[in-house]
Amino acid sequence: MDILVCYDVSTETPDGRRRLRRVARACEGSGQRVQLSVFECTLSDADYVRLRDKLLAIIDPAEDSLRLYRLMAPRGQSIEAYGIDRYVDFTAPLVV
Amino acid sequence: MDILVCYDVSTETPDGRRRLRRVARACEGSGQRVQLSVFECTLSDADYVRLRDKLLAIIDPAEDSLRLYRLMAPRGQSIEAYGIDRYVDFTAPLVV
Repeated sequence: MDILVCYDVSTETPDGRRRLRRVARACEGSGQRVQLSVFECTLSDADYVRLRDKLLAIIDPAEDSLRLYRLMAPRGQSIEAYGIDRYVDFTAPLVV
Repeated sequence: MDILVCYDVSTETPDGRRRLRRVARACEGSGQRVQLSVFECTLSDADYVRLRDKLLAIIDPAEDSLRLYRLMAPRGQSIEAYGIDRYVDFTAPLVV
């Protein structure tokens, strides 16, 4: 399933900046960064739960916001991207 | 339909900071800010097109990123929110 991970981590303290780095690192292992604090991930149910639990162990719920969105339709119907687009479709045919 | 608006606007120049304010203002008229650069909007097809065109007229595609996600399932199935949650469900019964 396609999952969107969006987060706001408070960076006012060194602790917050550390959480932000850890959240980004956890997401990098599971998907593609498409904006500064938005990742698109294609995950199995088990990997989804693993990622969510990892992120919940990192964030401070009193300071940070984590939102996970499930995209139910195929990418072409779910997503419109404009401007800078860092996403790479690794499942598409490679044109050289 | 439920639409998620996510943006990264480059704030390195005064022009960029102005674009950021204008993008936020356009989104505020159409939905709820749930994170610094994420809005959740419930829109008709026509309002969706209007918002998208307004945002496209503001952003600089060489500098900024705008991503629009369509959430196909009801909110309860599409969204998991953790930590700080600014969303208010105005359609739910009001408990006083």
